[in-house]
Amino acid sequence: MSDTWLDAIKWDADGLVPAIAQEHGTGVILMMAWMNRESLRLTRETGQAVYWSRSRGRLWHKGEESGHRQILHAIRLDCDADVILIEVEQQGGIACHTGRHHCFFRQLDTDGRWIETDPVLKDPTAIYHAS
Amino acid sequence: MSDTWLDAIKWDADGLVPAIAQEHGTGVILMMAWMNRESLRLTRETGQAVYWSRSRGRLWHKGEESGHRQILHAIRLDCDADVILIEVEQQGGIACHTGRHHCFFRQLDTDGRWIETDPVLKDPTAIYHAS
Repeated sequence: MSDTWLDAIKWDADGLVPAIAQEHGTGVILMMAWMNRESLRLTRETGQAVYWSRSRGRLWHKGEESGHRQILHAIRLDCDADVILIEVEQQGGIACHTGRHHCFFRQLDTDGRWIETDPVLKDPTAIYHAS
Repeated sequence: MSDTWLDAIKWDADGLVPAIAQEHGTGVILMMAWMNRESLRLTRETGQAVYWSRSRGRLWHKGEESGHRQILHAIRLDCDADVILIEVEQQGGIACHTGRHHCFFRQLDTDGRWIETDPVLKDPTAIYHAS
């Protein structure tokens, strides 16, 4: 399988691009993380989202610990070729490490306060087990 | 109007965060750009999307040239407080400088080729006039 499609992407100085995960079917924006060339190649090859964890400095197969994997439906690229959009099916219905459906659960209200608009579906301590 | 809500955001080393613009009502992801503190403050204050243009090194009031402004419906923040999601109404129905509805018009096909899936709605030369 040729990897020339990866050459179209304008990786930043760190070899990364932002990757937005959108839920297939609902259009909900689940999260944004980062991908390097290898993680995007693996995303396509495995059919599941693989990101680059900047904090841990390693490949991060989404759901490797929680089981909340993201099944790939499509890979899209923006006009400037420096942002990736993946359409995914979110296993377990939980994308966020806080146990919520998606990560954008805070909304600014008219008084300038961040209000939590989305519930915790599962206690994170029940998702992530000490290893 | 107090700006303490801006202090919750974890700006990167350049003082920026990625900002995803999602179309209110349809859920379509229109584009991703960057915001600094001032652009996000102005987004709220004016009720229209204001980004920071990294290429031009200045504030970029979306639609300032094209007229394709983005009317703000909501500002959201992710769990790590380092990605913004704005819900907007896209004036003119065109967010992309190529004259398309949104910027993610290329999709990877099964043969590893980027295929354009969305049409040009208006010729860019008719959108942007030499000044």
